[in-house]
Amino acid sequence: MSIKHVLPVNTGHNPYKIYIEKSFDMIPELLKEHGYGHSRKIGIITDSNVKEHQLKNLLEVLKGFNCFVFSFQAGEKSKNFNTIQQLYTQLVENEFDRHCCLLALGGGVVGDLTGFVAATYMRGMGYIQIPTSLLAQVDSAVGGKTGYDFMGYKNMIGAFYQPHFVYTNLSTLRTLPVKEFNAGMAEVIKHGIIQDESYYKFLVEKKEAIKDLNNEALTKMVKESCAIKANVVSIDEKEMGLREILNFGHTLGHAIESVYHFDYLHGECVALGMIGALYMSYELGYIIEETLLEAKSLISYFNLPSTLSDLDMDKVYKALFHDKKVKEGKVKFILSKGIGSVYTTSDIQNKLIMDALKYLKGVA
Amino acid sequence: MSIKHVLPVNTGHNPYKIYIEKSFDMIPELLKEHGYGHSRKIGIITDSNVKEHQLKNLLEVLKGFNCFVFSFQAGEKSKNFNTIQQLYTQLVENEFDRHCCLLALGGGVVGDLTGFVAATYMRGMGYIQIPTSLLAQVDSAVGGKTGYDFMGYKNMIGAFYQPHFVYTNLSTLRTLPVKEFNAGMAEVIKHGIIQDESYYKFLVEKKEAIKDLNNEALTKMVKESCAIKANVVSIDEKEMGLREILNFGHTLGHAIESVYHFDYLHGECVALGMIGALYMSYELGYIIEETLLEAKSLISYFNLPSTLSDLDMDKVYKALFHDKKVKEGKVKFILSKGIGSVYTTSDIQNKLIMDALKYLKGVA
Repeated sequence: MSIKHVLPVNTGHNPYKIYIEKSFDMIPELLKEHGYGHSRKIGIITDSNVKEHQLKNLLEVLKGFNCFVFSFQAGEKSKNFNTIQQLYTQLVENEFDRHCCLLALGGGVVGDLTGFVAATYMRGMGYIQIPTSLLAQVDSAVGGKTGYDFMGYKNMIGAFYQPHFVYTNLSTLRTLPVKEFNAGMAEVIKHGIIQDESYYKFLVEKKEAIKDLNNEALTKMVKESCAIKANVVSIDEKEMGLREILNFGHTLGHAIESVYHFDYLHGECVALGMIGALYMSYELGYIIEETLLEAKSLISYFNLPSTLSDLDMDKVYKALFHDKKVKEGKVKFILSKGIGSVYTTSDIQNKLIMDALKYLKGVA
Repeated sequence: MSIKHVLPVNTGHNPYKIYIEKSFDMIPELLKEHGYGHSRKIGIITDSNVKEHQLKNLLEVLKGFNCFVFSFQAGEKSKNFNTIQQLYTQLVENEFDRHCCLLALGGGVVGDLTGFVAATYMRGMGYIQIPTSLLAQVDSAVGGKTGYDFMGYKNMIGAFYQPHFVYTNLSTLRTLPVKEFNAGMAEVIKHGIIQDESYYKFLVEKKEAIKDLNNEALTKMVKESCAIKANVVSIDEKEMGLREILNFGHTLGHAIESVYHFDYLHGECVALGMIGALYMSYELGYIIEETLLEAKSLISYFNLPSTLSDLDMDKVYKALFHDKKVKEGKVKFILSKGIGSVYTTSDIQNKLIMDALKYLKGVA
């Protein structure tokens, strides 16, 4: 096996690897290594967008395998039980059993739905993540979170279920809409802010090469981001403690996302949430203004919003307290203590929350 | 803690205990021991039958706890996604989060549904099994199998998810319909046949005391049966090998059950399946006729069917090959090598399967 960029993810009971490549070429060998030979059924689950751009390439590589393709309409709106039910039905109709394998070819929605189907079809079958969006490559495909939205709540129903492996083909980023690439950058920037100052500096310095999809820059970036995420989830697979730091920017981000249902991409909401969290950190005296402004500038470079003039502050404020992470009426924030370091607090004054919302609206 | 009858279940990552008592009295102390104090929400999930007979007793013991009751129509027909969805909705509406706890008060259907909801609500919350039927006490509540039926297939969707503990209150058997008690005896008898000749002899000798619900006999029986099941699932939590032996009687049993949807109880179908498997074992020369006849007599003593004159052999035969355990067209049987010992085979001639069906129909 000649894969150069391999990262181990040491989740306790089911350690696995992330492979970072420039094509799909190594997938057949890896499938066989995991016991999925030509006689086993392979179910490729994908969405309408990815199907158009990437399916042909993958099927070409998988010639000789017994492949079935199941696809659904692209978008967060598909992330519900209807799609799950449709996938279960297709698996039953095509006589899949728990010794078959599912391949999640797509972004976060495809990965989360496929993972949940794999976790629950016949009480669990194997699956592989083949993330095709930047967001999925650096974030959602790593860590084994699977699930779907329910009653307007994101990922309300789900399971922790690890894939056999994650296979990132960087060339898929070339057909990804720029807006989605940029949304993925929000999570990349987050990784720098929460864990690694030198990585953050690399992002600032190499931002042009990254925007140009320079291969060397992308490989380093995806690998470093995966390493940061993999390290955190290795230590805390089931989100009992450390894993919370990955929610940096997500407290406000999720609240904004829940108000502006589907109007903004997840990464765009996270960008706003990060600016809000950095503003609060600045107001509390943990970071200097320059740090806040540099982050704003990096976020803006990737065309991500750092302010939202039509922000409905009351609605977002209310949504904050409706999040599933709210425990006993306390909203938990992850705040910065300087690039590379964060801390968790449930002890934020309501006034500061409102001030952060005003800052995001541009009226502070 | 002064509980006399405690059994450990050593499933790898989540070991837990089975408590066997004569009342619900010890539950509050155990809940607190697991971190569920008076401030945490407790969701009691039960069905219309159990609600009538047992809920009041349990609520009395749980005075001071923040209890919510969610119930659904009793019966296997409720074991579907509609009920799951209704439970999810009730949890969301009552603002349950993953730090709350679910109590499954009921038989196998309640336990399997509650376990699946616990496994998937917010990617997993804690739950406790309080089995009130004999079948659940000796079988379904032990081992962490959860799930629901889909497209006519039993337990097609599910997860392996272990409870914090299992709490059996033997006095619930006194309000259990006799027919259901007897159905539970099918699994009890199975435990003797597959693993323990001396336990099987105890069942034969004490069958009258058991039928009379003698406390001493019941305690020994439930404890021994749980020990056998717990031992098997400890070694093989996810059904990769040894756990298969628990399917003794279930290959034919499930096929019969799928044809006679809901006309016969699971245990009744398993009783027939065991007789079928013993007949095949006898025909293959592994057991003597006396063993087959003694098992038939014990099964009949508990008013379980050992023949079914209106058996539609063709339909059952066809259903056999539609089971989710069928791998590459081969039906797997667990057969007996004498009481206390079984083996697995996928190498049974179709004629022998038909002969077993004829024997069950009473036309062999």
